[in-house]
Amino acid sequence: MSSSRQTPLSSNPAGDHESTVTVLGLGPMGRALAGAFVAAGVRTTVWNRTPGRDRELIEQGATGAASAAEAVAASPLTVVCLVNYDATDAVLRQEPVTAALKGRALVNLSADIPGRARDTGRWAAEHGIAYLDGAIMTPAATIGTPRSVFLYSGPEELYEAQRPVLDALGGSHTRLGADIGRAAAFDIALLDLFWTSMAGYTHALALAGAEGVTPRELAPFAQGIGAILPPLFEEFAKDAESGRYSGEGNPLTSAVSTMTHVVHASEAHGIDAGIMRSIEGLARRTVALGHGADGFSRIAEVLGRWSGAATGTASSRS
Amino acid sequence: MSSSRQTPLSSNPAGDHESTVTVLGLGPMGRALAGAFVAAGVRTTVWNRTPGRDRELIEQGATGAASAAEAVAASPLTVVCLVNYDATDAVLRQEPVTAALKGRALVNLSADIPGRARDTGRWAAEHGIAYLDGAIMTPAATIGTPRSVFLYSGPEELYEAQRPVLDALGGSHTRLGADIGRAAAFDIALLDLFWTSMAGYTHALALAGAEGVTPRELAPFAQGIGAILPPLFEEFAKDAESGRYSGEGNPLTSAVSTMTHVVHASEAHGIDAGIMRSIEGLARRTVALGHGADGFSRIAEVLGRWSGAATGTASSRS
Ligand SMILES: NC(=O)c1ccc[n+]([C@@H]2O[C@H](COP(=O)([O-])OP(=O)(O)OC[C@H]3O[C@@H](n4cnc5c(N)ncnc54)[C@H](OP(=O)(O)O)[C@@H]3O)[C@@H](O)[C@H]2O)c1
Ligand SMILES: NC(=O)c1ccc[n+]([C@@H]2O[C@H](COP(=O)([O-])OP(=O)(O)OC[C@H]3O[C@@H](n4cnc5c(N)ncnc54)[C@H](OP(=O)(O)O)[C@@H]3O)[C@@H](O)[C@H]2O)c1
Repeated sequence: MSSSRQTPLSSNPAGDHESTVTVLGLGPMGRALAGAFVAAGVRTTVWNRTPGRDRELIEQGATGAASAAEAVAASPLTVVCLVNYDATDAVLRQEPVTAALKGRALVNLSADIPGRARDTGRWAAEHGIAYLDGAIMTPAATIGTPRSVFLYSGPEELYEAQRPVLDALGGSHTRLGADIGRAAAFDIALLDLFWTSMAGYTHALALAGAEGVTPRELAPFAQGIGAILPPLFEEFAKDAESGRYSGEGNPLTSAVSTMTHVVHASEAHGIDAGIMRSIEGLARRTVALGHGADGFSRIAEVLGRWSGAATGTASSRS
Repeated sequence: MSSSRQTPLSSNPAGDHESTVTVLGLGPMGRALAGAFVAAGVRTTVWNRTPGRDRELIEQGATGAASAAEAVAASPLTVVCLVNYDATDAVLRQEPVTAALKGRALVNLSADIPGRARDTGRWAAEHGIAYLDGAIMTPAATIGTPRSVFLYSGPEELYEAQRPVLDALGGSHTRLGADIGRAAAFDIALLDLFWTSMAGYTHALALAGAEGVTPRELAPFAQGIGAILPPLFEEFAKDAESGRYSGEGNPLTSAVSTMTHVVHASEAHGIDAGIMRSIEGLARRTVALGHGADGFSRIAEVLGRWSGAATGTASSRS
């Protein structure tokens, strides 16, 4: 394994016209990342805790490393993609891996909370590692296609230097700022939206099924609901920015009654309605606070206000 | 108020080339419906429990009725749009309203659970009222535009007879079958999806806000998440139909860990995480049942299986 040590601000140094990258972690997402690098002609070294996950990638042209340290030493840039930061700590915060990372660039695409990203940023700074935090907002199947979405935070110069290699992954790449926790902040908020929506759909499939409506019958109409969401997301953001939560078209008092229908219909079929019970509870508390004539978007403000009361940091708009 | 009694199977009888309709209920949705009828040149009579809500509509050309019975007597077709079926019962199941409806057509676009729709269907049959149940799947602002979506269930002949008047509302109209509860079954399942998704977004706005990310910053990425949902809805429906819940690209064990991040990050900011706690709980129970390598879509099957166990009616696929 050749150790072509280069400055982390240059991924294509003089004398080496070939991009190189190391990928640590070969779960579904790590494999998709490594596969996209290989497909784009980037010299790619891979490693995974459990052996054998690199077989297909090696057939495609990747180099398998015997250890994480050996993998890191093979490239000026290491991309890590593990289940969470407990896992990245377990892999990276040990010798000889940390020593091998010194003077190199590390892009962490594992998901976790912003505090863990900031903590990793401090650790990297202490060990002379050029660190970018990142998040992937689209499924593994999108990697290498224009549909993939990557978010980053960290130093601008470092980001610009690594862009040529990262661009091999396809899709859109956005740097959100210097605060290393910012990509993770967007990530958890967007995962909140994603999993909650998917939970709503799986629950809808179960409820429809109990009413004799098949998934195939429901899906086209569910896609119709999916289509009306993005403009409403824009509208709700404007409400939240302006502090005006107009319920003119659909007051919370009316919305709450349809939530109650979902709870009752679910429970009448023996289907757990815990999610909708939580939503209905939030909506009813918001009505009880005097916001019944407002729209559903008021709930974001009420949730944020509780946050402000609890932490004294978030601002309240009312 | 002229009482031009006509057969419910003909909304444009001989000698009357003008369509006529009555709208009961002038909340945001009822007003949108009546406004669209008036704009389309349909002779429209309106009534609402609380007086005064008809003012703007009358300026636009609608006729205000002094009572629900008088309103019903004015047209061969009455469209009712109230908060729920307790409200429609309060308005319709009393004399002289029920008597006035006899021999006329009634389309109920109020939202409620399927059982209430079936009960109303029985009541209508007993009283000689030609009854269609319906549901509106898009916001009030879409009424009269191609973006509005209407679902119906009930007798085909009656539906076809009323279509010319209903078409004045614009948008797409779909009859789902003869079972009078079917529109409501689709409605509650789709409301389940809709409110759960919107709750996910409002929660995401609050969580992002606590992390210093503004609604304006989050919204474009949230719209990106919104765009990846419809194809996943299609994929999940196929999983549910086939009974294969592949977690190849994103196993439940990995998904669960990001749900935990959302819960921890929310609660660290004092933000209620009840919704995501419910989702995480469902996901962990599904993993505990041995489905950790499956995808999130497996949750629909597990929810349905509980339903089957509880009611003995829904079918289990595993
Ligand atoms: N899959 C997607 O569609 C998707 C989409 C967006 C973001 N992401 C994010 O991408 C990251 C990776 O996801 P994934 O889909 O590849 O699957 P994953 O199940 O989240 O992660 C699997 C990887 O983590 C490793 N790992 C777990 N615990 C470890 C430990 N203690 N020490 C060392 N390695 C450990 C696994 O190694 P072993 O093979 O040895 O267990 C494997 O390489 C996650 O943060 C996920 O949230 C995934
Ligand atoms: N707004 C939307 O965007 C939307 C979208 C899809 C479906 N829908 C459905 O459309 C229906 C109507 O919704 P909406 O938005 O117009 O507002 P709403 O608040 O759900 O309903 C208001 C209407 O219900 C009447 N009402 C309530 N209780 C009553 C009672 N006991 N007796 C008589 N009338 C009573 C109100 O009369 P008063 O004025 O006298 O209180 C008013 O006419 C609901 O089922 C809703 O779920 C609405």
